[in-house]
Amino acid sequence: MEHNLQNTISLLTRTPAALNALLRDLPEAWTFRNEGEKTWSAFDVVGHLIHGERTDWMPRAKMILQFGETHTFEPFDRCAQERESQGKSLGQLLDEFARLRLENLGELRALNLQKEHLTLRGRHPALGVVSLSELLATWAAHDLTHLHQISRVMAHQYREAVGPWSAYLGVLRCAGHSS
Amino acid sequence: MEHNLQNTISLLTRTPAALNALLRDLPEAWTFRNEGEKTWSAFDVVGHLIHGERTDWMPRAKMILQFGETHTFEPFDRCAQERESQGKSLGQLLDEFARLRLENLGELRALNLQKEHLTLRGRHPALGVVSLSELLATWAAHDLTHLHQISRVMAHQYREAVGPWSAYLGVLRCAGHSS
Repeated sequence: MEHNLQNTISLLTRTPAALNALLRDLPEAWTFRNEGEKTWSAFDVVGHLIHGERTDWMPRAKMILQFGETHTFEPFDRCAQERESQGKSLGQLLDEFARLRLENLGELRALNLQKEHLTLRGRHPALGVVSLSELLATWAAHDLTHLHQISRVMAHQYREAVGPWSAYLGVLRCAGHSS
Repeated sequence: MEHNLQNTISLLTRTPAALNALLRDLPEAWTFRNEGEKTWSAFDVVGHLIHGERTDWMPRAKMILQFGETHTFEPFDRCAQERESQGKSLGQLLDEFARLRLENLGELRALNLQKEHLTLRGRHPALGVVSLSELLATWAAHDLTHLHQISRVMAHQYREAVGPWSAYLGVLRCAGHSS
């Protein structure tokens, strides 16, 4: 389907509550384990989502509206959560993510974007010219790629425990598809 | 990690609320669309989870406790939701899933399973001999495989809308891994 701003906002609104319902107070055996060296746990992913709320989506949207293609977005730091999540509990991160998302969606709604705004373009440091519409669609799809990742990382913890049923569990054959 | 009954119950307890937070009242453009012919929408997946609550997990667990390997489990009907979800809303399905899961977890806790019960074995119609521990671990991993699927099916709807960012979104390269 084409990008639809209301559908994007509907999804973005729900992600913090969905992650909260899934992860809060879940045993750390689920939430702090990863898939091996240099991979992320659910805890790491929530920290990454927080960093996106702070530095990626709305800052870039406002940059497109203000500067168009003349300014290049700041590169996104994919490892920021290693510093920023230190000493915090998963509950604190879930609260922080929910608060930042709410603020950002408030700002997004206040922009009162019209169809003509969505075709405006900006400049991504690696991907080149991108549209505001693509940025906002990616914000939603990025939530989904990390929900996909969290479910995979958690399922990985039971890879052995499920015995022969592993043959039926597609999630256990997912390699993550990260480049 | 090894199977841990409390960790399994912790996860099983959270899935209905997580799906509720993600899916309830979300536009149908997200929840009723699939990945193409003979694939499932989020609506279909919730129906499938309901059928599992009715016919798969607890019935099989009780069968292992009562009959061991002497009785073979009933085969699981992977298409049951096509009949059973007809005429229902997604909200109704989410309610039904939450109610059945709550009942089943009540029954599971009432069994007061000890370590020696978890090694008891039953007979799967295709996989052969399986343990109660493997069945219960699979119940949890099955929730995760379908959360993985739902996030993928929903992301698929924005495959074009994200433009060049598709290169960074692993979920868009996931083929589902179903056999």
